Amino acid sequence: MSETDRLARQIAFLLDADRLKTILRRTPLADNSRLENSAEHSWHLALAALTLREYAPSGTDIAHAVALVIVHDLVEIDAGDTFAYAVDGQDTKAARERAAAERLFGLLPPDQAPSFRALWEEFEAHDTPSARYANALDRLQPLLLNMESGGGSWTAHGVRRSQVVARMQPIRDWVPEAWSFVVDVIDRACALGRITPD
Amino acid sequence: MSETDRLARQIAFLLDADRLKTILRRTPLADNSRLENSAEHSWHLALAALTLREYAPSGTDIAHAVALVIVHDLVEIDAGDTFAYAVDGQDTKAARERAAAERLFGLLPPDQAPSFRALWEEFEAHDTPSARYANALDRLQPLLLNMESGGGSWTAHGVRRSQVVARMQPIRDWVPEAWSFVVDVIDRACALGRITPD
Repeated sequence: MSETDRLARQIAFLLDADRLKTILRRTPLADNSRLENSAEHSWHLALAALTLREYAPSGTDIAHAVALVIVHDLVEIDAGDTFAYAVDGQDTKAARERAAAERLFGLLPPDQAPSFRALWEEFEAHDTPSARYANALDRLQPLLLNMESGGGSWTAHGVRRSQVVARMQPIRDWVPEAWSFVVDVIDRACALGRITPD
Repeated sequence: MSETDRLARQIAFLLDADRLKTILRRTPLADNSRLENSAEHSWHLALAALTLREYAPSGTDIAHAVALVIVHDLVEIDAGDTFAYAVDGQDTKAARERAAAERLFGLLPPDQAPSFRALWEEFEAHDTPSARYANALDRLQPLLLNMESGGGSWTAHGVRRSQVVARMQPIRDWVPEAWSFVVDVIDRACALGRITPD
C-alpha cells in the first residue's frame, strides 16, 4: 500500500466515523434542549475520564481509558444505539455490533484495524481496570444528564428504580467513591416522581 | 474540602462543560445535514489524533495530544466560537477566552484547575510537539468536512484560496506528510467553484 493510499484509507475511516454525530441517544442534554448524540456523548466521557481519574480502579491507564471511550460507540454508526432499558434489540445487539466493527474498522489500513477493534472489544468485555473505569463513566454520564434535565430518559420511558440501580452497578463495583452520590441522585429523582418506584 | 464537596465540584464542571454541545461551528457535518457543534468536533479530533498518530511530529505524546483536543474548545462555552476566517472578534478573542478559562476551570477543585488550564494554554501556545499535532488536526478536520459536504464554510462565506492555504499552514509545518493531500483538496475545491480564487 502506498503512503497516499494509506492516508486515504485513514481519512475514509474518519469521514465514515463522522456519522456518529447523527446517532441519537435517549438521554437529553443537561439543558433539556434536545437529545444527545453518540459523538458528543463520547467526548463527554473522555472529559469525565480526565476529570474523575482519582476515582479510577487501581491499575487504570487513564490515557487508555480515554481511547476506549473515544472508540466505544463507533459501531452504532451501522448498528444504531440500543436503549439501555429496552428489552427489544438486546439479543441481536451483539451480532449487529460485530458486523459493524468488521466493516468500520476494516476501512483502516490492515495493520491498523486490529488495534482499533481491540479497543472496542476491551470496552465491551470490561475485564481490565481501564475498561471498567470507562464502563462506569458510561453509566454515570447519562445519570448526570437525566438528573440535570429533570428526568430525561428515566421519565420519558417510565424506567423503574430497580432498573436504574441495576444499570448503575458498574459504578458501585468499580468507582465506589461515587456510589453514595449516585444513590442520592436516584433517591431524589424518585422523590420528585422522575423515576418510577418499584 | 470534604470528599463529597470535591466530587460535587468535579460534577458541576462536567455539567457546565455539557454546554459545549450547544456551541455551533461554521463547518457542516460531512453529510451536510446541519452545522457541527464544538463537543462532537472535539471528539472527532480525538479520534483523528489516534488514527493519524504515525504522522505526528517527533516527540508527540499521543495521549497528551488527545487530552489537549478534548479540552481545547471548552472556553467557547462562555466566549463563543470565533470563525477562523472572520475579521471581527479576533482582537477580543484572547481576552474573552482567558476570562472563560478562569471561570470554567475554576469550577474544579483548586488543586485540579491548574492542570486543566495548562492543557488549554499548551494547545493555544502550540510550542510543544503534542500541541502542534493537535493544532494541525484542528485545521485538517474542518477541511475534511468542507470537502465532503460540498464546500461547507468555504462556500457559505466566500473564503478565498489564499485564506485557506494560510489557515492550513500548521499542517504543512507540523504534519507535512498530509500536505500534498491538503493541497489537492484545495485545488479540487477551487476547480469546482467551492473556494473563491484569489
